[in-house]
Amino acid sequence: MIKVLLSEDEIPRQWYNLAADLPSPLQPPLGPDGKPISPDMLAPVFPMNLIEQEVSRERWIDIPPEILEILYLWRPSPLYRATRLEKALGTPARIYYKNEGVSPAGSHKPNTAVAQAWYNKQFGIKRITTETGAGQWGSALAFACCLLDLECKVFMVRISYDQKPFRKMMMQTWGANCVPSPSPETRAGRDMLAKSPDTPGSLGIAISEAIEAAVSDTSGQTRYSLGSVLNHVLLHQTIIGLEAKKQLGKINEKKVDVVIGCAGGGSNFAGLAFPFVVDKINGAQIKVVAAEPTSCPTMTRGPFAYDFGDVAATTPLLPMHTLGHNFIPAPIHAGGLRYHGLAPLVSQSIVEGLVSPQAFDQLDCYAAAVLWARTEGFIPAPETSHAIAAVIEQAKQAKEEGKEKVILFNWSGHGLMDLLGYEKYFSGQLTNYVLPEGELQENLRVLQNLPKAPANKTGKW
Amino acid sequence: MIKVLLSEDEIPRQWYNLAADLPSPLQPPLGPDGKPISPDMLAPVFPMNLIEQEVSRERWIDIPPEILEILYLWRPSPLYRATRLEKALGTPARIYYKNEGVSPAGSHKPNTAVAQAWYNKQFGIKRITTETGAGQWGSALAFACCLLDLECKVFMVRISYDQKPFRKMMMQTWGANCVPSPSPETRAGRDMLAKSPDTPGSLGIAISEAIEAAVSDTSGQTRYSLGSVLNHVLLHQTIIGLEAKKQLGKINEKKVDVVIGCAGGGSNFAGLAFPFVVDKINGAQIKVVAAEPTSCPTMTRGPFAYDFGDVAATTPLLPMHTLGHNFIPAPIHAGGLRYHGLAPLVSQSIVEGLVSPQAFDQLDCYAAAVLWARTEGFIPAPETSHAIAAVIEQAKQAKEEGKEKVILFNWSGHGLMDLLGYEKYFSGQLTNYVLPEGELQENLRVLQNLPKAPANKTGKW
Repeated sequence: MIKVLLSEDEIPRQWYNLAADLPSPLQPPLGPDGKPISPDMLAPVFPMNLIEQEVSRERWIDIPPEILEILYLWRPSPLYRATRLEKALGTPARIYYKNEGVSPAGSHKPNTAVAQAWYNKQFGIKRITTETGAGQWGSALAFACCLLDLECKVFMVRISYDQKPFRKMMMQTWGANCVPSPSPETRAGRDMLAKSPDTPGSLGIAISEAIEAAVSDTSGQTRYSLGSVLNHVLLHQTIIGLEAKKQLGKINEKKVDVVIGCAGGGSNFAGLAFPFVVDKINGAQIKVVAAEPTSCPTMTRGPFAYDFGDVAATTPLLPMHTLGHNFIPAPIHAGGLRYHGLAPLVSQSIVEGLVSPQAFDQLDCYAAAVLWARTEGFIPAPETSHAIAAVIEQAKQAKEEGKEKVILFNWSGHGLMDLLGYEKYFSGQLTNYVLPEGELQENLRVLQNLPKAPANKTGKW
Repeated sequence: MIKVLLSEDEIPRQWYNLAADLPSPLQPPLGPDGKPISPDMLAPVFPMNLIEQEVSRERWIDIPPEILEILYLWRPSPLYRATRLEKALGTPARIYYKNEGVSPAGSHKPNTAVAQAWYNKQFGIKRITTETGAGQWGSALAFACCLLDLECKVFMVRISYDQKPFRKMMMQTWGANCVPSPSPETRAGRDMLAKSPDTPGSLGIAISEAIEAAVSDTSGQTRYSLGSVLNHVLLHQTIIGLEAKKQLGKINEKKVDVVIGCAGGGSNFAGLAFPFVVDKINGAQIKVVAAEPTSCPTMTRGPFAYDFGDVAATTPLLPMHTLGHNFIPAPIHAGGLRYHGLAPLVSQSIVEGLVSPQAFDQLDCYAAAVLWARTEGFIPAPETSHAIAAVIEQAKQAKEEGKEKVILFNWSGHGLMDLLGYEKYFSGQLTNYVLPEGELQENLRVLQNLPKAPANKTGKW
């Protein structure tokens, strides 16, 4: 048995909302005045039906059948057992993974892109704006908008737009309008171009442009969409973990010992892990590992604090692990893990002791990715390689302990658009980047003048 | 219902061999002396177990369980219904497709790569050589050899090696040794480099290099592998059509009216079509369409004749539709359809009236591919777009006739490594290339001095 399939009629019909079960209540986002923001204040940016999901404390939220109809294109995704990797490691552990690379965009991102596009359409929205770094999220949203007949506008960080053109071509093929950011189309973009015409751009500026393009449409028919971090985005991803539970049940695998995902903004990690985190809250013995790069150690070295989601400090303040909103990570190849913050739901899970973060060096991750490709066949994305590095470490530990552990992880996406990183790895052009302590402290200074997150029930933060 | 899955234990356990059922016997390959070659004469090139398959007239050939164990990584592949495309076309036809893009290399090619690598290994071979154009076949063989612990050496046409580096990187990730051809490693390569140091290379030279590298290994532990054209290669692909039959049976779709595939060498087409061609031989009313480019109209305008498989005229003479072995097709983006010949089994099926070839223009194929991506989500390979163009034509015809036809086709691979072609299409840089009659006739002259294929039972060739 290599893989466990579910038929379409076995797909989960509800998403799971961890906010209903966290031991301490989730801290609210704050406005510029330091006071909790109300749902109404988000209305120019997001449609109200998604804002309702964002603030919901309901444990289960129904998935509309029309969304499932599109997800069926690749869902339920297969659960694989990595028997060849197990054999190569000589481990007694059984390693399972959800293959989220089977989606049209090649990653887990379409799970929420389709949902967000559908809710926007239901709300009467005609056009969605977003930003993208290397293009993984932009291409997922382009795909979703295409199938739902919505216009899609993507502001792509200029240096990626120029150097990594393939995801831009995917967006174009799906009919989206992708422009390099900063662009002359927004005030934020024009200001930046006036100041520095040759700027390579940044995710911070691209976010500012995408939000401005949404809120400045006087017809009221444009909204903005974010591919990670927010509660509703993580919610949409929980279908991954819920499917995995059904699939493990089918093969009588009753107890999972370790659950692993890589975490940049936190959505693929949460999608697999949250349905297991609640078991842990209810007393199950499960180790839940969130893997990140040592170059961008948000979870392992960043404090839990209120911070802005973007460099320009235009978003609400979110309670999260953060390296400071001005932090610019080293240019590692796992673009999706180069973010200064981490989803509030994941961050709070860490502080509550439910999730164990762990950082991995770039070269170890590539070595893990190559071992994976040469045993399991599928070539992983550089982001996914961080989860694989964690899996290998856990499997080796199981070997040392002589324990038949069950390890489950999220194979968040394939690396077919990221082969340049592999080539650089093979030719010895890659190095590790560990964030120096001085640089970390300097970046954390911006947090001093921001509100502090109040202590939780256990006094832990 | 969007897709029909089969579990691993429902996978076909035998390949289907059309050679057992053709109305007229398959013509033998001929040696340089014009006489049929014996299996022994192929022994320095291929392992004997594959040569036995090449000449077999057995109807069913068992698939070794060890091969299935690797195929399970992506097989059985899903059968999809293209409901969104049907709706966009307003057709009463039901359109089904096999998604062969789910394999680690992204196409149908690994179906035979795994089988060939396994049989070579069984025969004691340690190293396999091959050639590749754009890299689709080379990457599939690299993947297969990696999982079976065989060395893999790929001679890649230099212009593709330089201009389309991503498949080379895939091969490298799977541990294969890929060099640009012509290379200094073979006499054929050195001769060519001496004559013209800046040559962009060609598939013909790459074949010569790969065969030389195999037969000149005095240890006897190296063999050569071909990714299409030959009987055993087509045999390994029939798992596609056999799975499709089971899947259609599961949803009570009793009668297929039209079966479609694109054909370059013929293997993906044969893989889907042959299990239905035999139904046609046995009296079923099925239209079987093989789609090719107007720029390389092997089936629609090339005669059925004995010709060499390579430019250098080093292979045996094969009975096939051909444009002449010196023919150099226009530089269309569907690299896998740029071959002067066509598999003998498919060629003879055409002459017997079992298969209807049809040629499509490049721009129509890209338009079909874009319509596909924007309705069905997955971005197709340029080769696959030829099948899609044929599907759309058949679906429109069903609409005109008001008939509920069932159309089945082979979605042979995804286009994620071919996005440059899409970009050129959108920016208006692509044109159609219809092969001029004068150029065709000039290329066919090489056939005049070669043996003629004897007439079949019906006197048709």
